[in-house]
Amino acid sequence: MDLSTLETPCLILDKGKLKNNIDRLHKRMAKLGVNLRPHGKSAKNMDVMTMALEVQSGGITVSTLKEAEYYFSHGITDIVYAVGIAPVKMKRIVGLIKKGADITVLLDSIEQVTFVAEAGRKNGVTIPALIELDCDGHRSGVTLEDSLLLDIGRLINNEKGVSLAGVLTHAGESYQCKSTDEIKAMAETERAMAVKCAEILRQDGLPCPIVSVGSTPTANFAEDLTGVTEVRAGVFMFYDLVMAGLGVCDESDIAISVLTSVIGHQKRKGWVITDAGWMALSRDRGTAAQKVDQGYGLVCDADGAPLKDLIVSGTNQEHGIISARQQRELPLESLEIGSMVRILPNHACATGAMYDRYYVTDGSTAIVDVWHRVNGW
Amino acid sequence: MDLSTLETPCLILDKGKLKNNIDRLHKRMAKLGVNLRPHGKSAKNMDVMTMALEVQSGGITVSTLKEAEYYFSHGITDIVYAVGIAPVKMKRIVGLIKKGADITVLLDSIEQVTFVAEAGRKNGVTIPALIELDCDGHRSGVTLEDSLLLDIGRLINNEKGVSLAGVLTHAGESYQCKSTDEIKAMAETERAMAVKCAEILRQDGLPCPIVSVGSTPTANFAEDLTGVTEVRAGVFMFYDLVMAGLGVCDESDIAISVLTSVIGHQKRKGWVITDAGWMALSRDRGTAAQKVDQGYGLVCDADGAPLKDLIVSGTNQEHGIISARQQRELPLESLEIGSMVRILPNHACATGAMYDRYYVTDGSTAIVDVWHRVNGW
Repeated sequence: MDLSTLETPCLILDKGKLKNNIDRLHKRMAKLGVNLRPHGKSAKNMDVMTMALEVQSGGITVSTLKEAEYYFSHGITDIVYAVGIAPVKMKRIVGLIKKGADITVLLDSIEQVTFVAEAGRKNGVTIPALIELDCDGHRSGVTLEDSLLLDIGRLINNEKGVSLAGVLTHAGESYQCKSTDEIKAMAETERAMAVKCAEILRQDGLPCPIVSVGSTPTANFAEDLTGVTEVRAGVFMFYDLVMAGLGVCDESDIAISVLTSVIGHQKRKGWVITDAGWMALSRDRGTAAQKVDQGYGLVCDADGAPLKDLIVSGTNQEHGIISARQQRELPLESLEIGSMVRILPNHACATGAMYDRYYVTDGSTAIVDVWHRVNGW
Repeated sequence: MDLSTLETPCLILDKGKLKNNIDRLHKRMAKLGVNLRPHGKSAKNMDVMTMALEVQSGGITVSTLKEAEYYFSHGITDIVYAVGIAPVKMKRIVGLIKKGADITVLLDSIEQVTFVAEAGRKNGVTIPALIELDCDGHRSGVTLEDSLLLDIGRLINNEKGVSLAGVLTHAGESYQCKSTDEIKAMAETERAMAVKCAEILRQDGLPCPIVSVGSTPTANFAEDLTGVTEVRAGVFMFYDLVMAGLGVCDESDIAISVLTSVIGHQKRKGWVITDAGWMALSRDRGTAAQKVDQGYGLVCDADGAPLKDLIVSGTNQEHGIISARQQRELPLESLEIGSMVRILPNHACATGAMYDRYYVTDGSTAIVDVWHRVNGW
């Protein structure tokens, strides 16, 4: 099967680029002496995660319990569910543990310790919990100065049904950095804060085996990870225009793209209309705040070579509008009605979420595999 | 089953509001003497479309061939596929026609007429085609002044394998209107342009049985639809914050919402963290350009009553951040960790797209049904 026979819109995954991206970060982590715990939230697919675990198998991270159950059903037992835990999720957590999963939950409040411990005791299991740390004001977590850190740590240690696995933080603000020097500094802030919190717990006589940090930008620019036991990252497998805009990867590293058909020309407006709207590309506009705004995505030819100046400047539900970044004539002869182009996405996770499968290529336009995604919760 | 036992995030559909919204637009259309051809792109579900077709059954509109095949498998034969046709889609179009579907394609170029006619001839079928008109510069379509209208009409009429079904336009720019008077004017522009184009074709001796217009805003404010044979609308079934911001509906009409669990408090920042991030709400920020920016959605209590001043001000993949629009203390006592709230979406189609099912309520928090969605292409 060749790419040109696929129905559009659909999601293309370049296996060679995927492999290179995975190898590169694994080598970095090996050099820094830290385990990589790949995040399954971007891939949502076992074939991808198998590649991500080939070099070193230190377990995975997930963003939904559906991912946890899916990856566990494929033989992965060491799983960190890296979203703050809610009461309605305890039944499935307990179910996974009873089946043999080593799943760890995340929390940053006394209330969560209480209901996790209760669920553990009621079901005769001990649920490992990581304390979430806020290293950069990005979203959840306790701060270094907050007495809550010790309060939560002590409560977990005293309660039956729950055990203290360590600390976890995510430098989500690294996505907003304006230079790679800023990302380097952010990586050190992330590391230092997590290590300090681990020390506070240990000095209080509490266990803290895991010191988990990570984001794709900080993982790529950290220069020292002393005291850290594992790094989490997900989007590095695919990369995207936001990461390229941050300087974390090159556009040529981006492993996923959306294949779309040209369905019209609006010559007087300089528009080419395609069948990849926001339903196919997602509403993500992550490059809008970056130096180069890529619209809803960068246009490539059907072989995947960027048509440098062309972006998807607008979308409706099932319509994309391609136009030139600089006002100029569009190369309509290479964008004929009925022909196909490919779009590099702003955000691989958001664009991937619109699809139930990847059409996998490997160095040509031949489709060598179809890999399914586990969406939803 | 009660809503409080559902796992979060999930999508809630209020059947009573759905019914009221459908009834209201049907009554409008009946008063204006025009058939409503409901768009299946928002619902992506047969139970909803059955309700939308109860009053008058004049066929449906779809945005994907997957919708077309799904609705056809449930007994709907009269289907307009309202996205410009591409060559890779002809096989499924022909397949539907051969099975007995009365499916009409949309086009606005000579190239499309050529490949549609060829597919029809090659497969021994005649494919009905509507000419897409551009009434407002929104995206696709030929303009009133463009000789392409007659060129396409004549070519369709001369070719075997394709037949001229009429004209279709969509006043997509109505979503940008600043007042209901503007929407009224837009509705008249949409009507007048479509009717004039139909006249041009008819004066040339060409058939033009269908004059199809529509968008939810213009359908709601059109005062005269003389010459129009059908109105298409989709989001009117559910409504959303964008439609409320336009004055097309009230917030209390919005039939869908996302149920989410509170998973944390960041008191020093005035944030409540939930498990409904952009994966659950979509990245749609349609109210950003409106008078009242609703962030990623308006927060309601678990019964669906808006907590007026609270919006989802930020999202990550699986995290939502609730804060007050005006800087003030959050009512944390009614947003306890582990409790549930509901989020009204900016854009029903985009938020719906993140889910494979609706949990249906009808006047209480009891779940009376589960309705599945047909996502993808």
